[in-house]
Amino acid sequence: MNYKPMNDHFIKAYDRIKDQIHHTPVLTSDTLNEIFGVDLYFKCENLQKGGAFKIRGALNAALNKKLNHDIKGIITHSSGNHAQAIAIVGKLLNLPTIVVMPKNAPKVKMNATKSYGAKVILCKPTQKDRENTVNDIIAKNGYEMIHPYDDDDIIFGAGSVGVELHQQIKDLDYILVPLGGGGLLSGIAMYTKTYGKNCKVIGVEPENADDALRSIRNKKRVTSHHPDTICDGLLTTLSERTYDKIINYVDDIVTVSDYDTIKAMQLVYERMKMVVEPSGIVGLAAINQHSIFKGKKVAIVISGGNVDMQNFFESYNFN
Amino acid sequence: MNYKPMNDHFIKAYDRIKDQIHHTPVLTSDTLNEIFGVDLYFKCENLQKGGAFKIRGALNAALNKKLNHDIKGIITHSSGNHAQAIAIVGKLLNLPTIVVMPKNAPKVKMNATKSYGAKVILCKPTQKDRENTVNDIIAKNGYEMIHPYDDDDIIFGAGSVGVELHQQIKDLDYILVPLGGGGLLSGIAMYTKTYGKNCKVIGVEPENADDALRSIRNKKRVTSHHPDTICDGLLTTLSERTYDKIINYVDDIVTVSDYDTIKAMQLVYERMKMVVEPSGIVGLAAINQHSIFKGKKVAIVISGGNVDMQNFFESYNFN
Repeated sequence: MNYKPMNDHFIKAYDRIKDQIHHTPVLTSDTLNEIFGVDLYFKCENLQKGGAFKIRGALNAALNKKLNHDIKGIITHSSGNHAQAIAIVGKLLNLPTIVVMPKNAPKVKMNATKSYGAKVILCKPTQKDRENTVNDIIAKNGYEMIHPYDDDDIIFGAGSVGVELHQQIKDLDYILVPLGGGGLLSGIAMYTKTYGKNCKVIGVEPENADDALRSIRNKKRVTSHHPDTICDGLLTTLSERTYDKIINYVDDIVTVSDYDTIKAMQLVYERMKMVVEPSGIVGLAAINQHSIFKGKKVAIVISGGNVDMQNFFESYNFN
Repeated sequence: MNYKPMNDHFIKAYDRIKDQIHHTPVLTSDTLNEIFGVDLYFKCENLQKGGAFKIRGALNAALNKKLNHDIKGIITHSSGNHAQAIAIVGKLLNLPTIVVMPKNAPKVKMNATKSYGAKVILCKPTQKDRENTVNDIIAKNGYEMIHPYDDDDIIFGAGSVGVELHQQIKDLDYILVPLGGGGLLSGIAMYTKTYGKNCKVIGVEPENADDALRSIRNKKRVTSHHPDTICDGLLTTLSERTYDKIINYVDDIVTVSDYDTIKAMQLVYERMKMVVEPSGIVGLAAINQHSIFKGKKVAIVISGGNVDMQNFFESYNFN
């Protein structure tokens, strides 16, 4: 494997953002350790601002752009956790903020994004219409686009999860990271390898959204992709940028079933009292499905906890 | 108020138990601070072993008994979080453990208690039958009773929440504590006052289970009590012991509606990504209902997170 020497981009990114984000805890569970026969450490980015790790990259990217020149505002397109992260960043930095969302995005995510003060503009639910809508707005108002994962600053920011985690827990054997567009996985793997940590970094994909595994096996990025999974945060494909980083820095990719993901989610609710989204907890599903982790010291990165709990609370409704 | 000087029972209890419990995090939320106009610090005992603070007192009491003489086993009666705490303590200390539970206790709590290795014995759902069943067993096997709250060692152990909290956050104006039997509130208030912390400690009761408020107002312990609240962990009445401590060390008691408690619970799920039980989050409901906390630095003790989420997960069921 080619461990290119890196400058201290990750440390710089972490120093830049750390006072405006949560230093998320690493939690453990004797019960889960016993069930799986693994020494588990949960890095809880579900407890991060906006309920996901996304603010780390978004804040780093926006701050870096501000360092270089005055900016008029920030914009992105997203139906997921990146939308809320950009809205929070806009609020923290006092910048006008627009999030383009597909018309069919969940109302709860639209409302959360608006609640931080961002303007939400709806578009047709196609990748092309999302990009065209953003480009039309940028042409008019000159806002800065902040991509959800295909951007080095996003990857350096996301990698700060690894910076914190290695400070919190020493001598990990493995880190398991949810894999969608590949920003979080790339960042954690690059930081871990370039700083000489002796620890394997593994990406975890839903088995019916396994474009990254197929890309690595074919030694060529797979672009044809028809995902079918409950993990709505892991539907995206790798970019050339994240494909290249994963080839160079990630030790392996494993897949998990949706069934095991939901069982993992339920264990975390019942035994660890945390709200996690399916995409966020695939790492624990991998522990159940793959025996190589037995007896090892393994970090599970919980990437987010944004899940619609309306049904649950409706059962409590009363006058 | 009569601040009797205390020996260092709380520090000793904390030193005794701290290596076998979780040092639970204090979490914050910008969004909740903004909604309520209060500087809020959540002490997360829902993330404690067994999903509640109860293990602190139970472990301290059992360890203290073991120091004084050999013990054959431990026993309690409980339909709630104390049951799981005793089961975990039995497992940690490798002691035979019996929990007497009323027949109508939730299956999920019975199963959790059994899962830690305790023997569950069912009885009729009356206080009298619970006590008689326990006494009959003790007469036969000589196990040690560990009461859920009416015991100084339990109060010293529960008070270790306060020891940790004051280490984690300095200069608090208020600490809000759920109030049922009064063990947790007594412990935190005694520690706070006897160690000279300049901070008010307030008990929070459901308005339809307000025996403590009525006791304080009448200057006599209320024993007639017909509670009607969704907060199943706060149904119990004060004992003479906790009544006396509350009179002496607690600054005030406030009540909250079940409606506000459920709204508080939903906010914590959606904005802080934590599972909390209604009884555990009455402190946040008090913030909404009482204006004295505006602009203050307030700790909310989240006492537990054991809630049945079967309905929620049934919505995910698939083959």
